[in-house]
Amino acid sequence: MAKKEAPDIVVGRLPLYLRVLNQLLEEGRTTTNSQELGGRLGLSSAQIRKDLSYFGGFGKYGAGYDVAYLREQLRRILNLEQVWPVILVGAGYLGHALANYQRFIENGFEIVAVFDSDPNKIGTQAGIHVVLDVKDLEKVIDEKGVVIAILAVPMQAAQKVADRLVNAGVRAILNYAPVRLNVPDHVKVQDIDPVARLQHMAFYLSDAEVNPEENT
Amino acid sequence: MAKKEAPDIVVGRLPLYLRVLNQLLEEGRTTTNSQELGGRLGLSSAQIRKDLSYFGGFGKYGAGYDVAYLREQLRRILNLEQVWPVILVGAGYLGHALANYQRFIENGFEIVAVFDSDPNKIGTQAGIHVVLDVKDLEKVIDEKGVVIAILAVPMQAAQKVADRLVNAGVRAILNYAPVRLNVPDHVKVQDIDPVARLQHMAFYLSDAEVNPEENT
Repeated sequence: MAKKEAPDIVVGRLPLYLRVLNQLLEEGRTTTNSQELGGRLGLSSAQIRKDLSYFGGFGKYGAGYDVAYLREQLRRILNLEQVWPVILVGAGYLGHALANYQRFIENGFEIVAVFDSDPNKIGTQAGIHVVLDVKDLEKVIDEKGVVIAILAVPMQAAQKVADRLVNAGVRAILNYAPVRLNVPDHVKVQDIDPVARLQHMAFYLSDAEVNPEENT
Repeated sequence: MAKKEAPDIVVGRLPLYLRVLNQLLEEGRTTTNSQELGGRLGLSSAQIRKDLSYFGGFGKYGAGYDVAYLREQLRRILNLEQVWPVILVGAGYLGHALANYQRFIENGFEIVAVFDSDPNKIGTQAGIHVVLDVKDLEKVIDEKGVVIAILAVPMQAAQKVADRLVNAGVRAILNYAPVRLNVPDHVKVQDIDPVARLQHMAFYLSDAEVNPEENT
């Protein structure tokens, strides 16, 4: 299938396309084109057309794209025509923010259980969930057919929990722990590390440029 | 300077190198090499050597790298020899998690103020901070010499707040709102969107592969 040949970096842009298409729909728009999509995404129109060409022809030459149709096709390609059950491990500050994050359920992902190992957290509320003992992780994954997990545990615990997730059948981990997880090839990991992102930007904040606007 | 020529994708990996070097130091290690760094980062040793070559020679051929020295050089390159004051806009669930996130201060970034526009949130506690009225944004940015901001506001408010941040002198924005910000070229933006990351991984979770381990 053509789908399988798309580079991972292109696949990673599809959710951003979907985000823009959702916004266009909310604005009542019915058609768009690669120029407009590019403008909203900070990409060239040629890039947009090339990215989408991996997955088929979605527009007539010169006529642009039907917003609703392209959105449905991208949802199909990204396997978002179903709601995915997701478990969240870690009920600290970050876990609470994630348990309360409405955009997950609005976009195809339902947190079905929240876990922690801390006796002071087990049994407390996190969003609409009562925090479960992490010892029941495998049981819940099996019962609910979960293949996606969000990992919001301390760095020291992350690999051990990841091993258990993988052994229980999880194949996609959104990892907030600042450590690279070792997982088998069939398991996908996406890391979210805000510190690394700040440090990346700090590279460009050389002293010479500090407060260039400060000329009053 | 050679530094300026490094591709952005290489700059983005330096914080991950730094993370591994910190871990090696904590383990009491004094030397390492490109094979080990590559193994811990999921990169080839050739990639490690190529990345670091943009910034100078950090190891003797065959002798590897001095962990403490390489760490100090990367901190210098990333402008992390100072602590950067950072403001956080948005004191919802996510804002609270960020206000309490210890890794910021441990890694060169100090949240110096938290803002919100909601009268019910202004004056309440977020981490060690009392939430300030967003109307005082510019004043605090100016007083504290802030050039880095974390944006954790609803999508609808994000661009408007970003415009104010940029006009007040902010040059780096860590953006949690699911929208692409329009900013001038001299301003860096890094987006964090967990939904996009989950959708990216969902692409690879085709139905045919569901529960491949389930063969009992």
